[in-house]
Amino acid sequence: MTDQKAAARPIGPDSDLEQVFELAQQLRVDSVRASTAAGSGHPTSSLSAADLMAVLMARHLRYDWQQPKNPANDHLIFSKGHASPLLYAMFHAAGAVDEQELMTTYRTFGARLQGHPTPVLPWVDVATGSLGQGIAYGVGIATAGRDLEHEPYRVWVLCGDSEMAEGSVWEALDKAGQRNLPNFVAIVDVNRLGQRGPTELQWDTEAYARRVEAFGCRALVVDGHDLQSVDRALTTAADGQGPTVIVARTVKGQGVPEVADHEGWHGKPLPPDLAEHAIAELGGVRHLTVRGPRPPEAAPRPPMAATAPMDLPHFQLGDEVATRVAFGKALVAVGVRPDVVVLDAEVGNSTHAEDFGKAYPDRYFETYIAEQQMIASAVGMAVRGYRPYAATFAAFLTRAHDFIRMAAISQISMALSGSHCGVEIGADGPSQMGVEDLAMMRAVHGSTVLYPSDATSAAALTAAQADLDGISYLRTTRGAYPVLYGPDESFPVGGSKTLRQSGDDEVTLVGAGVTLHECLAAADALAGEGITARVIDLYSVKPVDADALARAARDTGALVVAEDHHPEGGLGEAVLSALAARHQGPAFAHLAVRDLPGSGTAEELMDAAGISRTHIADAARRLASG
Amino acid sequence: MTDQKAAARPIGPDSDLEQVFELAQQLRVDSVRASTAAGSGHPTSSLSAADLMAVLMARHLRYDWQQPKNPANDHLIFSKGHASPLLYAMFHAAGAVDEQELMTTYRTFGARLQGHPTPVLPWVDVATGSLGQGIAYGVGIATAGRDLEHEPYRVWVLCGDSEMAEGSVWEALDKAGQRNLPNFVAIVDVNRLGQRGPTELQWDTEAYARRVEAFGCRALVVDGHDLQSVDRALTTAADGQGPTVIVARTVKGQGVPEVADHEGWHGKPLPPDLAEHAIAELGGVRHLTVRGPRPPEAAPRPPMAATAPMDLPHFQLGDEVATRVAFGKALVAVGVRPDVVVLDAEVGNSTHAEDFGKAYPDRYFETYIAEQQMIASAVGMAVRGYRPYAATFAAFLTRAHDFIRMAAISQISMALSGSHCGVEIGADGPSQMGVEDLAMMRAVHGSTVLYPSDATSAAALTAAQADLDGISYLRTTRGAYPVLYGPDESFPVGGSKTLRQSGDDEVTLVGAGVTLHECLAAADALAGEGITARVIDLYSVKPVDADALARAARDTGALVVAEDHHPEGGLGEAVLSALAARHQGPAFAHLAVRDLPGSGTAEELMDAAGISRTHIADAARRLASG
Repeated sequence: MTDQKAAARPIGPDSDLEQVFELAQQLRVDSVRASTAAGSGHPTSSLSAADLMAVLMARHLRYDWQQPKNPANDHLIFSKGHASPLLYAMFHAAGAVDEQELMTTYRTFGARLQGHPTPVLPWVDVATGSLGQGIAYGVGIATAGRDLEHEPYRVWVLCGDSEMAEGSVWEALDKAGQRNLPNFVAIVDVNRLGQRGPTELQWDTEAYARRVEAFGCRALVVDGHDLQSVDRALTTAADGQGPTVIVARTVKGQGVPEVADHEGWHGKPLPPDLAEHAIAELGGVRHLTVRGPRPPEAAPRPPMAATAPMDLPHFQLGDEVATRVAFGKALVAVGVRPDVVVLDAEVGNSTHAEDFGKAYPDRYFETYIAEQQMIASAVGMAVRGYRPYAATFAAFLTRAHDFIRMAAISQISMALSGSHCGVEIGADGPSQMGVEDLAMMRAVHGSTVLYPSDATSAAALTAAQADLDGISYLRTTRGAYPVLYGPDESFPVGGSKTLRQSGDDEVTLVGAGVTLHECLAAADALAGEGITARVIDLYSVKPVDADALARAARDTGALVVAEDHHPEGGLGEAVLSALAARHQGPAFAHLAVRDLPGSGTAEELMDAAGISRTHIADAARRLASG
Repeated sequence: MTDQKAAARPIGPDSDLEQVFELAQQLRVDSVRASTAAGSGHPTSSLSAADLMAVLMARHLRYDWQQPKNPANDHLIFSKGHASPLLYAMFHAAGAVDEQELMTTYRTFGARLQGHPTPVLPWVDVATGSLGQGIAYGVGIATAGRDLEHEPYRVWVLCGDSEMAEGSVWEALDKAGQRNLPNFVAIVDVNRLGQRGPTELQWDTEAYARRVEAFGCRALVVDGHDLQSVDRALTTAADGQGPTVIVARTVKGQGVPEVADHEGWHGKPLPPDLAEHAIAELGGVRHLTVRGPRPPEAAPRPPMAATAPMDLPHFQLGDEVATRVAFGKALVAVGVRPDVVVLDAEVGNSTHAEDFGKAYPDRYFETYIAEQQMIASAVGMAVRGYRPYAATFAAFLTRAHDFIRMAAISQISMALSGSHCGVEIGADGPSQMGVEDLAMMRAVHGSTVLYPSDATSAAALTAAQADLDGISYLRTTRGAYPVLYGPDESFPVGGSKTLRQSGDDEVTLVGAGVTLHECLAAADALAGEGITARVIDLYSVKPVDADALARAARDTGALVVAEDHHPEGGLGEAVLSALAARHQGPAFAHLAVRDLPGSGTAEELMDAAGISRTHIADAARRLASG
């Protein structure tokens, strides 16, 4: 096969496997070239999976590369995100990324071809690179396809073998099996070598297969470099008979004898001379293009508009209602929006998420006690345009911290709710008390953190979550406390409520959730002593109402913040940061990573984040002259 | 059998199974009594496992109840910590907890019989209540027993069936199987009903068995109420032939027909009249005592003292050395202490933990990419008196957040290290950047957070971690930066270093890690403009050097803090909190949960934490009069 001939006719479903092999070799060559040009990356992890991906994209992946938003497109997730050279080589072969971009921008500052894939690229659904996650997102997307959208797309996930040690993988396969998802296929690239040496199971493909089958999925064991076997397995996997995991025995660095199955080559580009030699061994640079199977024609889809006005629950002033109860009732009201879905981790009767399940059983998903998979399923559904709400105890959201962090990098919009926050829960003891959740959720990139004190505000903020960009978090309380606000009150995100105020306030009391009720009681006690106190309901913890806080600091000269959370990273530090930003307190500048970083050198990224020497000097100049 | 007769002779290995059944009924009765008296708790989850635990404690658990620190004692972990009524009823039967304590203090404020067990009780190794964790800690303890201590003790873990959906369970069983731990036995109480209804697999005990076997453990399926079968299974499990999981089919609420196998009874005490009826059905109150098998005589153990002086690595001033490299070298030096063990999650060549592995292979544990199990194994080893260091990328420690949180409740002392923090890592992109870890680790109860800027301080602080109580965290940087300190410098926890200082400083620059180097460069630039800047190395983020910061705020009137971390919960907010505590800035009081809470009512716990109305009023009075 000559370059000319291949260039003339794209590789596709009708191409023979010899042609597909040429495509695989091109993917290898381009993986080597891109990573050597970048001076970093994971070529050997790309080489092991090149045959698998060549067969997939030529013959099985139904994808319209010109229209990544086509709702009938299959989904392809690289759970082994470090194999980004391979993924980007595929994009190149599909005509989506040109030679120039692949060879000069990979892993550079400001480029969309980052070290690990993110949805900055239109063909990427979710950010990967924290291993054991891609397969979990795939289950979420496949669930959306079968159970919500009824679209015929399939979800293909490429996994590494090292990541099969992550428990999250087994939470995911358990759900794939339990839900019997016919549109879910995982392909495990068993190349035997992890970052620092042999993997736990090395080439024991039968052990992987036994585990997969025990978790309710079909396992197909293949030689990942035998294109015919791979093709057969992919055909079987797509037969709609149930969730499938292809366990492919491969060689890390396949095609380049100098590195193939050698330890010490993980995450290392080939040096230029070895790269040149390897490219020659692989048959040189090719210019093949791919035109794989087209997705089926998608039926036009009606917009997901609300079927009725959203009728939020009303609560009587003074009635004692738990905010988690209000959350459940508000969810039912929000359910008039057909894009809203709710996920539970087997505590829906405690969080009150199950109220939604009773009203809208088709949009309620029980993930049992598997918080990582609950979040991953929510992310997968958000990828498909749904607005997920996922709820568990605030304490148990820590189990999914890495998934929440990655969802922020994926720029997912979803609503989380953590119930039973703080020591307020009482008898169950510290294991059930969320006293770290505000710190965790505030530090998530682009997050919104809400902490209502009464049922009216809890319901309003639950509804507000449906329209917030990014990851929003609603913290709810176990116990019932008096309703403070009437039905016409509004609760803008970033606002606050001043509940007590006079011209001669001597101190400001700031609370949220249960502590607001304590603040009100304290103000009453103080009033009896002739001390007038301002009281602020800081229901929006991030963003926080810096205006109201600065005004209170100025007017009263003294603030008391009470929070049912560890002192670090919660309400108190949110207040201090707001005051410092308004120059209340000592002159103070705070430089930190505030935007979502991409790839680049350390210098570039630190400069872009505003934490490098020039920014520090600038801030110091401003303060010194102020 | 009459009460008198039973009271006269303790139940033990020689008792027949009819007597053991009487013990089981006593455990049931006492579970019902204690939870009804408390007005909360999980009696039905206790009833399902009573037969399993009666046989275990009478015939198999080798435990000296008078000497819980006996090193040859078996270990018993209630992974289903909500079955605390059963556990405490066992303690009562063993004579460790008296009738008065069981019946009047359970779940009350200040009591050691908390809602979920914690090591406040001398017979409890680890806090449980976050499901899916106990089995993971058990694997850590069993590993310590076989591989470090060579003690013949066995580890028994009682699990619920709902928690088998947690991925962490499969990380644990994978390790039990891979290490072929003969001293590890898990007993799964398959009672079919979770908190809100049927579990995913209900009574499909064969499905559990297939999964267990696929993960390399022996599975024994039994009827959990057939004492003879249970006894046989426990005998087999203890035969030393490998890790075993007993899959026991049980009935939730067994013995009380009104609730047995009924939904809606999770976490609910029986109302007093039903409790009275149930106690009668169960044969009434008994006063049986248990004297189970004794542990073998433990050989006297030499104290784990250092075998040589700790010889920390020296670095040349100005040489460029990454702090993660210094961490690895320091670990080798710390290794002269035989109690030090190191755990890796397959990135030891990146974190440099593997340096220790090369020097001390017998005390180095590879957990592959399973961060939850890495932390759980560390906790298990700490339970046995070892000093674990566990290291992975800072970003991936988020995967183990819930385990770290629970380890703090267990009052474990261990050292964590997170490498590749911040955007400084460069090309790999955001999935690999730890920019939330300071917020996470600062908010852990009782934690110490360290963030060195050079190799000398990194080595010194790594060594300091070996003697710190609680959970300590060392944040290390990918890149190499100049050595700033000579070998004789000391780095006390809670201290800081002032690197530039003069009588007319106009501003203070505060950094740690990579940003300290940026601060030094900025100070140089400012000096050229005639602006003198103080520079502080804030290597101890928690506790933080409030004296030095307050002095700097007073002297220079202006602070610039730069951190390679999101703005929330990190260095900047640590500084603000320190300044606020020293009355720098507006008068400010910060009330929060600072101590480890136990059980109690909401009112009691909030008052104890100092966040209730009286404390708020007190703080306000102080500020208003100040």
